[in-house]
Amino acid sequence: MSLDDKAVKPHDRLAEALASDMAAVDALILERMASRHAPRIPEVTAHLVGAGGKKLRPMLTVAAARICGYEGTLHHNLAAAVEFIHTATLLHDDVVDESKQRRGRPTANLLWDNKSSVLVGDYLFARSFQLMTDTNNLRVLSILSSASAVITEGEVLQLSAAEDMKTSEETYYTVIRGKTAALFSASTEAGAVLAGATEDQVEALRDYGEALGIAFQVVDDLLDYLSDAKTMGKNVGDDFRERKLTLPVIKAISKAGDEDRAFWTRVIEKGDQREGDLEHALDLMQANGALDETRAAALDWADRGRARLAVLPESDLREMLDDLADYVVARLR
Amino acid sequence: MSLDDKAVKPHDRLAEALASDMAAVDALILERMASRHAPRIPEVTAHLVGAGGKKLRPMLTVAAARICGYEGTLHHNLAAAVEFIHTATLLHDDVVDESKQRRGRPTANLLWDNKSSVLVGDYLFARSFQLMTDTNNLRVLSILSSASAVITEGEVLQLSAAEDMKTSEETYYTVIRGKTAALFSASTEAGAVLAGATEDQVEALRDYGEALGIAFQVVDDLLDYLSDAKTMGKNVGDDFRERKLTLPVIKAISKAGDEDRAFWTRVIEKGDQREGDLEHALDLMQANGALDETRAAALDWADRGRARLAVLPESDLREMLDDLADYVVARLR
Repeated sequence: MSLDDKAVKPHDRLAEALASDMAAVDALILERMASRHAPRIPEVTAHLVGAGGKKLRPMLTVAAARICGYEGTLHHNLAAAVEFIHTATLLHDDVVDESKQRRGRPTANLLWDNKSSVLVGDYLFARSFQLMTDTNNLRVLSILSSASAVITEGEVLQLSAAEDMKTSEETYYTVIRGKTAALFSASTEAGAVLAGATEDQVEALRDYGEALGIAFQVVDDLLDYLSDAKTMGKNVGDDFRERKLTLPVIKAISKAGDEDRAFWTRVIEKGDQREGDLEHALDLMQANGALDETRAAALDWADRGRARLAVLPESDLREMLDDLADYVVARLR
Repeated sequence: MSLDDKAVKPHDRLAEALASDMAAVDALILERMASRHAPRIPEVTAHLVGAGGKKLRPMLTVAAARICGYEGTLHHNLAAAVEFIHTATLLHDDVVDESKQRRGRPTANLLWDNKSSVLVGDYLFARSFQLMTDTNNLRVLSILSSASAVITEGEVLQLSAAEDMKTSEETYYTVIRGKTAALFSASTEAGAVLAGATEDQVEALRDYGEALGIAFQVVDDLLDYLSDAKTMGKNVGDDFRERKLTLPVIKAISKAGDEDRAFWTRVIEKGDQREGDLEHALDLMQANGALDETRAAALDWADRGRARLAVLPESDLREMLDDLADYVVARLR
């Protein structure tokens, strides 16, 4: 066992600690993604589910239930439901964003077509609700159906905020609370509820999940300007080229004088991007503190998440969730 | 009151009898399609919900609950959930089919874009599950989440069966049980379950809904070859031009000799359609009995549906469901 080995990534230690639970979740995913009449459904699903996703969200569900003393098996259904919602969202996102690559492989919309991605996503949504219904727990259903609605609201809001220079930090946080943090927090909250945890513990795990999700997305948006292709699996400047109003850009614009403002208007709002613009944008964000402030925001969210764990009983798993929050922002240090 | 006036369409008599229930359902639909953060969501939804849909499915839910003696108000939530699932399906269908018109108006994917249609559909799915969760009835959730999965399986199966001359009647029925009948039968079944009806009554209403849905779709597929634009709101031959394997074509192909088979292969499988082909197809289907057999199948399904109503207590509403099954196929007589 290497659970105490801090050199191993927290995510991998969690996977090791939850190995038998996650094997059951994987088996359930395989069983429930099948279709009696439409073989294309498991084909498309397998392409994504088999493609090296880390299954972070279902692990959070299982960990939350275990930390709160759950000893049954219905947390497997819940974890599979969470992974189905996530997979359905990815399928639909890739249609909406017209993406060509996901996890280093061609997207389903490219390999099959948009039709298949839309319908298979719908199928997985429906299957996720069947899995939740199996838990016989109405509060769990309520948490996850609300999260599904909030995820979509975040995505629609992001659509209408794209290329809009007036996008505020508040709007940015509403978007990422929806598109990313809502499912993280529902994953941990639902696990705790299923385990019959106290309200204090349920709230703590919900807040932890939300803060983790926000930190995760802020880091992602920052690394889009800092990282190289090797560490990210995508290229520096993708968000810039797609004119996305992410936190570093929003902060940079809010600090810009007239001249810099004209630059941002040209490259983001008008989409007139030329050789050297990305480098200039980086210089501006470095000089006016936008990058530092974004980094500080991510660290703060991770700290907030970790602080909420104190309410829970001490355990190896609690320690791993603590380390996980740390790890999410470690790439920024 | 004109409830006894047989000259009034059964659908309109049902709407009149259920007027106060349906007003409550409409109010709930308006309330729940709102979004705090994304105003585009109710815009897109209103375009469809306000566009003269007959709300047949939610009426079936309300009628089923009432026939089984339900006196609460949660059937309104259930009816709104059913209408949301139906609307979400239409939004996604129009993306999948690249449709330009729905109910005589431009489709949402044309007025806004595919992105909005995909995401707003997802939002309505999520909202429908929230509405169902409000009923605190896990069996109702199970019925409607299963129906949602079966609907999508039907659509995916239809995708892979398109233009495929080997499509059997069995496959055709699997497709339409999914894409059309599953939501009809879930609508009536869930209403009965919510009302605490006996198992006999639940099964009878489920079977009635399914038979009504199948009859409805067979009639629709037949009228695509018979009707004129005025009565249908679409043109004769749309399915022919789109090379869909609907029941009349499947029957015609199964009866075809070598020469006729070559014709069907050319127009359906190869998609090489010329002036006069639609008329020739109609002549073939008329001569070999494909149209008559399709008509007989529709009438038979309507009769099967009506026969199942005998288990239920006599009432004006039961009478209207009986007339409704009759009315669905009346256009064929």
